[in-house]
This record gives sequence, structure tokens and C-alpha cells, in this order.
Amino acid sequence: MKAQEDIIIAHNEKGAERFLGRIEGKEPVFICTIGNTETAKIPGISAAGKYPEITDYTPAADVELLFYGECKCIDGVPVTPDGIPTPALITRSALSLADIPVFAVSGGVRVKPLAPFIDLMGEPGEDIRTGRAVKNVEEIIRRAEVVGRNFSKTADYLVVGESIPGGTTTALGVLLAMGLDAEQKVSSSMPVNPHNLKTLVVEEGLRAAGVKAGDFKSDPIGAVASVGDPMMAAFSGLVIGAASRIPVLMAGGTQMTAILSIIRGLRREVLENVAIGTTRWIVQDESSDIRGIVSQIGDVPIIAANLNFSDSKIEGLRAYERGVVKEGVGAGGVSIAAFLKTDGRVSCKILLREIEENYRRMVG
Amino acid sequence: MKAQEDIIIAHNEKGAERFLGRIEGKEPVFICTIGNTETAKIPGISAAGKYPEITDYTPAADVELLFYGECKCIDGVPVTPDGIPTPALITRSALSLADIPVFAVSGGVRVKPLAPFIDLMGEPGEDIRTGRAVKNVEEIIRRAEVVGRNFSKTADYLVVGESIPGGTTTALGVLLAMGLDAEQKVSSSMPVNPHNLKTLVVEEGLRAAGVKAGDFKSDPIGAVASVGDPMMAAFSGLVIGAASRIPVLMAGGTQMTAILSIIRGLRREVLENVAIGTTRWIVQDESSDIRGIVSQIGDVPIIAANLNFSDSKIEGLRAYERGVVKEGVGAGGVSIAAFLKTDGRVSCKILLREIEENYRRMVG
Repeated sequence: MKAQEDIIIAHNEKGAERFLGRIEGKEPVFICTIGNTETAKIPGISAAGKYPEITDYTPAADVELLFYGECKCIDGVPVTPDGIPTPALITRSALSLADIPVFAVSGGVRVKPLAPFIDLMGEPGEDIRTGRAVKNVEEIIRRAEVVGRNFSKTADYLVVGESIPGGTTTALGVLLAMGLDAEQKVSSSMPVNPHNLKTLVVEEGLRAAGVKAGDFKSDPIGAVASVGDPMMAAFSGLVIGAASRIPVLMAGGTQMTAILSIIRGLRREVLENVAIGTTRWIVQDESSDIRGIVSQIGDVPIIAANLNFSDSKIEGLRAYERGVVKEGVGAGGVSIAAFLKTDGRVSCKILLREIEENYRRMVG
Repeated sequence: MKAQEDIIIAHNEKGAERFLGRIEGKEPVFICTIGNTETAKIPGISAAGKYPEITDYTPAADVELLFYGECKCIDGVPVTPDGIPTPALITRSALSLADIPVFAVSGGVRVKPLAPFIDLMGEPGEDIRTGRAVKNVEEIIRRAEVVGRNFSKTADYLVVGESIPGGTTTALGVLLAMGLDAEQKVSSSMPVNPHNLKTLVVEEGLRAAGVKAGDFKSDPIGAVASVGDPMMAAFSGLVIGAASRIPVLMAGGTQMTAILSIIRGLRREVLENVAIGTTRWIVQDESSDIRGIVSQIGDVPIIAANLNFSDSKIEGLRAYERGVVKEGVGAGGVSIAAFLKTDGRVSCKILLREIEENYRRMVG
């Protein structure tokens, strides 16, 4: 497989090879799952927006960027406080090079995309420090399942990604609530990972919910409802609905481990049909440990796109090499899907050229 | 083709054969397009609900029935004033027998389905007698185009259907506004077609819009905005977005001719890639004339499912043979798709058995 030099196998090599063999040359559908959580507005938690309040717009703007190559609800594109652009730029570039179809599914957003999306009628999530983070979790999951099942009848495999600022903190919430050893292990969109702040926020949430770490070990719905976010509910339902029939590449970083844990609690058997697809920046990140969390959950393969922006002429892209952003909006998984769909005609190199072109056009 | 005895070719035989050849054995996606118009509440206009006010719920309930095999926003299923059940019963039966994936797209509804649907953020339509029936027509079309384009990358062909009470009256509105000879030619869900009432309603709408029949000959957006409905905007956009790449079976009765007229005005070339898929009850209806309208627009083939309920043990189904309901929710087109996908293993006979079973379960 030509594409292989562009792909890193980071966990469960045999399973990963098997998974890659099943999706190589096949026709994927990409679904971008979105949500909001008030957790993102806690100062220092999220870099998925220039300042905390504007993170409300990030998921909607990301979806617009995926569909139209430009955002509609904001000027320019979502950026970190340092001006580094959203990974949706990578996703959009990979989707268009490989002509991969895209759909958006909302688990509950504060700002609706000015683009078509599948509404699961969920509400935006509360700050997890309330201990009552998400309403109607089961209903959102059930609706998402129906969507996943229907997509599984038309696509060869699904790539499912996410955009939700604050998502690694809510992921930590669900992981700890479900009794996993995840402290200091989740990733961050910031160059310096605010592990301690995240832990404090989660602990406050668990306290407010009247529980302690591990109390939701076999209750994923309770974990999400207390200290999770609406994106997770939508994402888990999509995977559960699709993966009994087709492979699902879960496109994201350490947030995917929270989804895995939810899925294991609801429909363990579908884990055999999933893999995590992420970026080199995640699997080589020294401030997080995706393998360490996944291996507590199951033998799910981790595959990473070997993206490397160090030689880019664009400073805003080279910044990715310093650990900013790292992943999001399915960037890693969609890159992998683009390599595999085109039998390597789309490579990391060609993808970077497209990203640079889009950067110049969208960010200037 | 085994399926052929179950299919009637009703217009443009050569084109129809060619179209059938292209979709036979292929994998369709069905999209149910929904909308509401206040026009449905004019007494005597619509039988798509037990009484005029409840027609608000019909599209949402139809979508729920398609996804879940039961309605959620109402008890039972949508029925005509005489208690004859929605054609969604046919559609659901055909979808499940042939394992065809289904999605819902809303152009603008008053009642949202308690099921996943793609929101184009349109508003429910006004009574066309106001002459200002639909807001943001262009935007809805453009969003639907994006959806159609993305589905065209994953499906072999699309079947697009509709649920909007009052839809044949708004269809007449657009047809007359665009200068077509459609008077006394559109169909009706009632056994006695209220042609004169429909014409009066449309005339009042055109007058209120300050125009006369034909004034929107080359302005489909203006026609829909004045005397159309939001479903049409969504439907047209879906077809335009998909049909440049894959065949689209437009599943419906005479309403499809209004969509054809809109498409011809916006993107004439895609008409070569579409056909109308409907029911025997439409093509043999003596109170309407689908061929007479289509032939004014272009050489689009008309294909009909040879459904015949005269031997059914269920009175509520035999009523279809007396001209009640006739078509809707893509019933005819989806039946055709089910025959062709299964190489005739699903036939009219087998489909009727499934419909009867679903009838007993859902209607009692």
C-alpha cells in the first residue's frame, strides 16, 4: 500500500493492519459531530477560539468551513489565542483532494451552522462543574444510532470526527467518572497542557454530581449526563449505529478514548469494528498519553496521519510542530481516509500543499 | 429484468428504459423532503390529515414513521378525514424490505420530527393567497444543493420524495406562475379533486403578489417565493446538487412537475439525469394529467410502481383503489427502487403483504 509511508501505526499493529486492509481503496463518508459545552469558557481550558466566549462559534464555523471552504458565522476562520488556525483547514483540504462526502451532526450547539446539518435536537452542554452537563443523553444517542445505521447502508466505512471546544476536559470528566486512569493523560489544544486545571474542574463536577471517580464505571449515560458533553452522545450513537455493519474510523485525539469507554459500556461488541485515526502530533505528544488510556479500554488500533508541517513556509502551520492545536474536526482520520481512498495519490506532501493554498486563501 | 412486471412505463419509453437500466441493482439513498404551508389549512384543499389544523403534524409524523415504524408526535399514523392511512406506510414497507437507507431534509416545518433530520433552516411556508409564500428560497436551494452533492458521492442514485400537505395546490401555483398549462391537471389526495378551489387559491395568490400567470416564466425563485412552498426549494436543490453526478428518481405525483419546472429554470442540463417515479394511481388518474404537464417541460421519463390494492383484505388499503391518497412520501419511487435493488425479489405482491402487516401493527 503506497499510502503507508504517510501513516503511522501507533497501537495494536496487527489490528491496525487488518483495519487498514479493510478500508483501503473503499468509499468513506465523513461525519463531523459538533456540540458546545460551557466548560470551554473556563479561562485557560480551551484554545479553540481567540477568547473563551467566542468558542461558542467554533463548531458552527468549522462545519461551514468544511462545506463551503469559508466560514459564515464569523469573519475569517477559528483561531487559537495566538492566531493559529483551526484543524478544519486540514480536514477540508483532505476532503476536497479525495472527493470525500461530508455531513454534520449536532448533539447540541449554542450557535447553529449556516450550513446543512443533522439536528438531533439536543441542547448545548452545561459547565461540567454543575454536575449536570448534558440533558437527554439517551435520546441523543438513540437518534444518532439511527443516523449511523442509515449511513452504514450507503458508505463502505465511516470516518467520524468532532468539533467541541473544551472537549478534552469533558473527556477527562467521563474517563474519571468511569473509573479510568486518565489523569495527566488527555491532550490539549494548547502548547502547555493545563492538566491540573482540568482535574480540578472534573473533581468539582463529580462533587456537584454527588459522586466520586469510578462511580459511573458501568453507567456511561450517567457519566455523560453529569460531566460529559453533547458531542459525545451524538458521536457514540453514530458509532454504535454504524459499526455493527461497517468499519468506523474514530477521527480524533484523546477525546476518542472517552467515546470508546462510553461505547464499551453500551455495546461492547462494536469495538471490534473501530479504530482511532489521529495525527502524528497526538501520538508523539509528551504531555498526553492516548495509548495509556486506550489500553485500559480494549485493543482498539490507533493509526495516525504522518503530517509534518516543519518545512512549511507558513508560520501559522509550523506552529502545529510546537504542539498547538494538534488535532480536531477529524483532521487526522480524514487525512488517512484521503490517503487510502486515492491509493496514495494524495500524500502528506500533496496534502500540505493544498492546506497551504487554503491557508493563504482563507487566513491570508 | 424480473422487476419489470411490477413497473409501468408511463411516459418517454426509451428514456425510461435507459434510466431503469442505469439504476437496476444499484444502491439508492432515499431522502424524504418535508415542509409545511398554511395553504393546507384552507378547508377542502388537503386530505393529508384528519382535519386541516392537524396537517401541521403530518410531515413530522411521516418522517418518524419512516425511521421508527411508528409516529411519535401524534398517536397512530396520519390519516385522511375518512381514516385512510398515509402513504408513508408503503414507503416504510418498501425501505425495510429492500434495506434502503433513509434521510430526512426539512425545507421549513411548523412541527419538527422527533427523529433526526437535516435542517436547512428554512421557515414554514405561508398561505399562498398572501403572495409571499416562502422566505429565503435561494438560500434553502443552495443549502440543499450542498446536501445533494454530498449524497451523490456516496449513493449510486437518489430517490427523493416529499411530504407536505397542500402540496398539489402550491404546485399548481408554481406551474401557473411559470406559464404552464396546468389547470385541472394537478392531482389530489382526495377522491374528488377540488380543481376549482385550487385555481381560485392560486389566482388570489398571484393577484396578491401583483403578477399574473406566466409572469415568473423564467424566474423559478420568484415563483416559489410568491406561490410555492418550502419543500420545493429543498427538493429542487437536492436534485440540482446530485443529478450532475448520479441519476435522481423524483418520487411523487404531479408535484414533481412543479419541481421540474423550477429545475429547468435554474439548471436545465440536470433534467437529463432525472425521471419521475410514481404510482399506478397517479398515472391512471382521470382527474389529473401528469403526462400533459411533463411534456410541456421536457422529455423526462415517468415510471410507476404497479401497486394494486384491490385484492387487499384491508378496507383502508382498498380505498387507494377509489382514488384516495394516490401518492406521497415517495411511495411510488421507493417501491420502484425496492423492486430494482432486489432484482424483483421484492415485488408488488410481497410489498403489499408487508404493507398489510405494517397496517395491522400501526393502524390496528
